[in-house]
Amino acid sequence: MSVMPLIVQKFGGTSLANAEKIHRAARRAIRAKLEGYRVVLVVSAMGKTTDKLVDLAREVCSDPPKRELDMLLTTGEQVSIALMAMAIDAAGHEAISLTAGQLGLVSDSAHTRARIQRISRERIESELAAGKIVIVAGFQGTDDTGEITTLGRGASDTTATALAAVLDGTRCEIYTDVDGVYTADPRLVPQARKIDRISYDAMLEMAAAGASVMHSRAIEFGAKFEVPIYVQSSLTDAKGTMIMPETVGMEAIAVRGVTLKEDLAVVALNGVPNTPGVAARVFAEIAKNHILVDDIVQNMYDDGHFANLGFSTNADGAGEARAVCERLAAEIGIERVEIDEGVSKVSAVGLGMRTHTGIAATMFDALSKARVNIDNISTSEIVISCIVRREDGPKALRCLHEAFGLDKEPDDHNVMS
Amino acid sequence: MSVMPLIVQKFGGTSLANAEKIHRAARRAIRAKLEGYRVVLVVSAMGKTTDKLVDLAREVCSDPPKRELDMLLTTGEQVSIALMAMAIDAAGHEAISLTAGQLGLVSDSAHTRARIQRISRERIESELAAGKIVIVAGFQGTDDTGEITTLGRGASDTTATALAAVLDGTRCEIYTDVDGVYTADPRLVPQARKIDRISYDAMLEMAAAGASVMHSRAIEFGAKFEVPIYVQSSLTDAKGTMIMPETVGMEAIAVRGVTLKEDLAVVALNGVPNTPGVAARVFAEIAKNHILVDDIVQNMYDDGHFANLGFSTNADGAGEARAVCERLAAEIGIERVEIDEGVSKVSAVGLGMRTHTGIAATMFDALSKARVNIDNISTSEIVISCIVRREDGPKALRCLHEAFGLDKEPDDHNVMS
Repeated sequence: MSVMPLIVQKFGGTSLANAEKIHRAARRAIRAKLEGYRVVLVVSAMGKTTDKLVDLAREVCSDPPKRELDMLLTTGEQVSIALMAMAIDAAGHEAISLTAGQLGLVSDSAHTRARIQRISRERIESELAAGKIVIVAGFQGTDDTGEITTLGRGASDTTATALAAVLDGTRCEIYTDVDGVYTADPRLVPQARKIDRISYDAMLEMAAAGASVMHSRAIEFGAKFEVPIYVQSSLTDAKGTMIMPETVGMEAIAVRGVTLKEDLAVVALNGVPNTPGVAARVFAEIAKNHILVDDIVQNMYDDGHFANLGFSTNADGAGEARAVCERLAAEIGIERVEIDEGVSKVSAVGLGMRTHTGIAATMFDALSKARVNIDNISTSEIVISCIVRREDGPKALRCLHEAFGLDKEPDDHNVMS
Repeated sequence: MSVMPLIVQKFGGTSLANAEKIHRAARRAIRAKLEGYRVVLVVSAMGKTTDKLVDLAREVCSDPPKRELDMLLTTGEQVSIALMAMAIDAAGHEAISLTAGQLGLVSDSAHTRARIQRISRERIESELAAGKIVIVAGFQGTDDTGEITTLGRGASDTTATALAAVLDGTRCEIYTDVDGVYTADPRLVPQARKIDRISYDAMLEMAAAGASVMHSRAIEFGAKFEVPIYVQSSLTDAKGTMIMPETVGMEAIAVRGVTLKEDLAVVALNGVPNTPGVAARVFAEIAKNHILVDDIVQNMYDDGHFANLGFSTNADGAGEARAVCERLAAEIGIERVEIDEGVSKVSAVGLGMRTHTGIAATMFDALSKARVNIDNISTSEIVISCIVRREDGPKALRCLHEAFGLDKEPDDHNVMS
């Protein structure tokens, strides 16, 4: 007897905001079941539930214990799984809802940012074998002692791709309020086009550079286990974007998309003594104080005896970053700490950068012609990022979108994009 | 080393309706801890949360599966335990919240009306030994397979008294929106007095006869394990009512209180063939159809060949009761089924009925003088109940309150009431 193929469908909060939307999501799951799939649903909390619960916690306690915050926030997904099971039941199909504890999704014990350690197949597979649609609470885990954890904001995507990986899913479908991945944010660049197919690596860099379609860790799971991830609108049947293993044709496209990450601050440590371990010391202290670090750039001067060390961080953490860095400056003997809070980062992402030359030149030239000043530059294998003034961000994004020809269909469109 | 005494404090939904009230409840728990107690809190869902969740379920599904209803409703208490732990933390004391699954409160698998089977002391005692206030989610359980259950509406009281029993608690304190048990409902009888002390049996009969202070099953647990239950207002420090083992003085008081249960229907089966097993057959069918039965009366006629069998039920179940009884009448050969939906039940409760004579006569005389007609009469060891017209209910309650002298302090007040 052959086992039917399995898909995981994940619905985010905006796709579950009321009873009508829950029924719509339920119908999509039932349709997939009728098409012959075993169906696992992963759901987030309804609408703005998680934000409301966080507000409630803040009303009671200015700095709530993380364990209790997890206890509180996981109720949002538990409400969703129960209602989804009821909606499927109301439509005449069998379903069962499962918390992380019930299905055996075990994480470490790092409350509010736990990592998945293992997922048991047993319970889910037996419920699927009984003909049920299985509904799993996203975002949550339990540690080995039965404590309730959460996997970080937006981590229902991670629950979904991890389940698809463990259960040998054919694919993981992410239903959300956008209908796919675009060459740039359509709210800022009207000419932006929807991308049909994108590699995990390019998607990861787009996400890291500010494209807020999906949680990065979810894409990493997809990449590690080669589970195709299909991002689609929950409201329409329009074609979405497939995030998938890299194929030969993908490198033909130099730049896949451009992104803008706003509300950053750049911290510049000038005159850092360039002795071994200094950078490590600096970033250990930064990490200990839970300051998020975006990009790091360092360059030398005075025959390599001193360095200028810079990093970007979220603007709302700039105050704490300054306090930590000034304390460090006094201890290590750094000449000067400068913080610029009014900046954004514009990035170009594409596998083709590996083989195409002149991408950086095209980028700097386009920004220069648009009279956008560049503060910092950082690059990785498939990304080039520039720090620009915040007010120049949208203009910079639009000029790059045009400079890389992203408003036109790519040449290889009919081959493999 | 001697172990500190333990108390259980239970806070209902109205006592937790907002952040301020949660802080107030937290302060009460902290005060008990500072007085030298080990403190276990049991909390209900905030305010009208459970009702709102039931409404949400009904919006999605007209007849939600009971398992999923339990999955949904238990989130209300999980929110409360987390917020209560945060409030205690904010006040500088240590606390930990526990779900039924985490502490090991095991029930049977009868969703929406599960019964507690066993409670593990281990987790709670180790958290208490670590100096923490332990906060337990009321109303919920888990069965042996990890399925989430609920113990019936209002069952947080049961969770509290069961915990007090298992943990050898000194007492169980129930904080609620009334400040104790009264000789009659003060909204209907302005002369009603608060009762200082009442036996479990009398309290059970008062609850069964319509006094809505506490869940009956909670009182049964208290009685079985002789845990004193103290009912008090969460908003004031006014003296409440102690529900406790019967003492010698209690029988001195003939009638402890009078109650009114409204919105009942009386079902009369007239001309029932009086052969063995007929009553059993009738009530088996009634139970199978989940029709609640309040009191049962039966009397014989025609030399015991036929009986008139009557029972009272909730008015909103009268339609279904009629359908079931008419089906039965045809099968068994009952002459006539009559249903009267416009009735209430007025009861007098007191341990003293066992020894005092003339209570029934006083009751019927008082009702007669107030021109209240009596439809049915039923009695048990410490209760006399009369079915009256619904419109006569409040008047009947007031005349009985006066006839039994409940507006005056009892004679034995300074001895033991």
